[in-house]
Amino acid sequence: MELYGFGESGNAYKVALALRAMDVDWTLRPVDFFAGETRGPDFRALNPMGEVPVLVDGTTVLTQSAVILDYLSSKTGRFGGQSAAERREVLRWMFWDNHKLTGIVSQLRFMQNFLAPDKRVPEVIAYLRGRARTGAMILEDHLSAHGWVVGTAPTIADFSLAGYLYFPEEKGLERADWPAIDAWLERIAQIPGWAHPYDVMPRAFPGA
Amino acid sequence: MELYGFGESGNAYKVALALRAMDVDWTLRPVDFFAGETRGPDFRALNPMGEVPVLVDGTTVLTQSAVILDYLSSKTGRFGGQSAAERREVLRWMFWDNHKLTGIVSQLRFMQNFLAPDKRVPEVIAYLRGRARTGAMILEDHLSAHGWVVGTAPTIADFSLAGYLYFPEEKGLERADWPAIDAWLERIAQIPGWAHPYDVMPRAFPGA
Repeated sequence: MELYGFGESGNAYKVALALRAMDVDWTLRPVDFFAGETRGPDFRALNPMGEVPVLVDGTTVLTQSAVILDYLSSKTGRFGGQSAAERREVLRWMFWDNHKLTGIVSQLRFMQNFLAPDKRVPEVIAYLRGRARTGAMILEDHLSAHGWVVGTAPTIADFSLAGYLYFPEEKGLERADWPAIDAWLERIAQIPGWAHPYDVMPRAFPGA
Repeated sequence: MELYGFGESGNAYKVALALRAMDVDWTLRPVDFFAGETRGPDFRALNPMGEVPVLVDGTTVLTQSAVILDYLSSKTGRFGGQSAAERREVLRWMFWDNHKLTGIVSQLRFMQNFLAPDKRVPEVIAYLRGRARTGAMILEDHLSAHGWVVGTAPTIADFSLAGYLYFPEEKGLERADWPAIDAWLERIAQIPGWAHPYDVMPRAFPGA
């Protein structure tokens, strides 16, 4: 399988992590995001949404990290939950992640670290930080009572929710402030195949 | 089935619309959102994420509109796409909706219309409006070439993406600026069971 991605993309990292944990053969097709590759016509022909990750498996082209994770867990029979009810819970947490955690943390990290300094808007950073903390509090509460997001074993929901939380840049969330999240990130890091995002895919940010 | 919701919630409306289009018997359990009901302990015991919609079907309690829509289409065999590939496309668009359209438009509408005027932040409104328009442009491009979001018939992806777009309040998007979206909203409104959000569930906003 071929994965379009780059080191700074937490959404591509979610997929790369799953591919590694599921022991699937794959190669990286690096995307030059900061030079605008995802906004160009060649990339838009592949994915009109203009986003990584894209996973190509033979003639199947998939986008949206959660859909790719769902596809990979169906194909390998791994990390997808142990019943139809667990699979719905996995989907539920992945939707919540896209809406309320990754969807916010990724914007915040981008604006604080990768956007040109003169385009960073303090009011927007403050707004996103408030929303990121509300999201983190819900995840922290859940993980205070559960070792894994769904059921009693790691699933693609863990990979999805953790995707943006290993990056070293300022994200408006400090792991030390969220002890249950911190311990869970450490548990995920013990899964065979885990590696730090910047060790999984090369960075694309100029000068990184 | 029992649906927890209120008129202003586009996410609850998505589910109500699907229930009506699928001709499922349901009753509304109105939620007093603006008085803080979703943040109270009783509601959190039902849904720790503190969100509507919640659908109760016997002993099954479901949250996240897209998961509920997926459940309903599986249960009724309707509006779920016509193949495994179409079902993945439906999921893909619903994830994109949560991340890039509903996830943005709902924040923008809330801040412009329901938040106390002294708490509205012009910089945040401008930021969200820019992101909402980027999302709308991608949907407009897609609908310029397709009658329905996935395949050749309406699916739950259409209900999801359209959920916030029928409301009359300022959303940072004017239907007239997006002709393909406008025509598609009109097509959806022809599906038996369609009704305007405020005719489906009573409003909860004080004085509405």
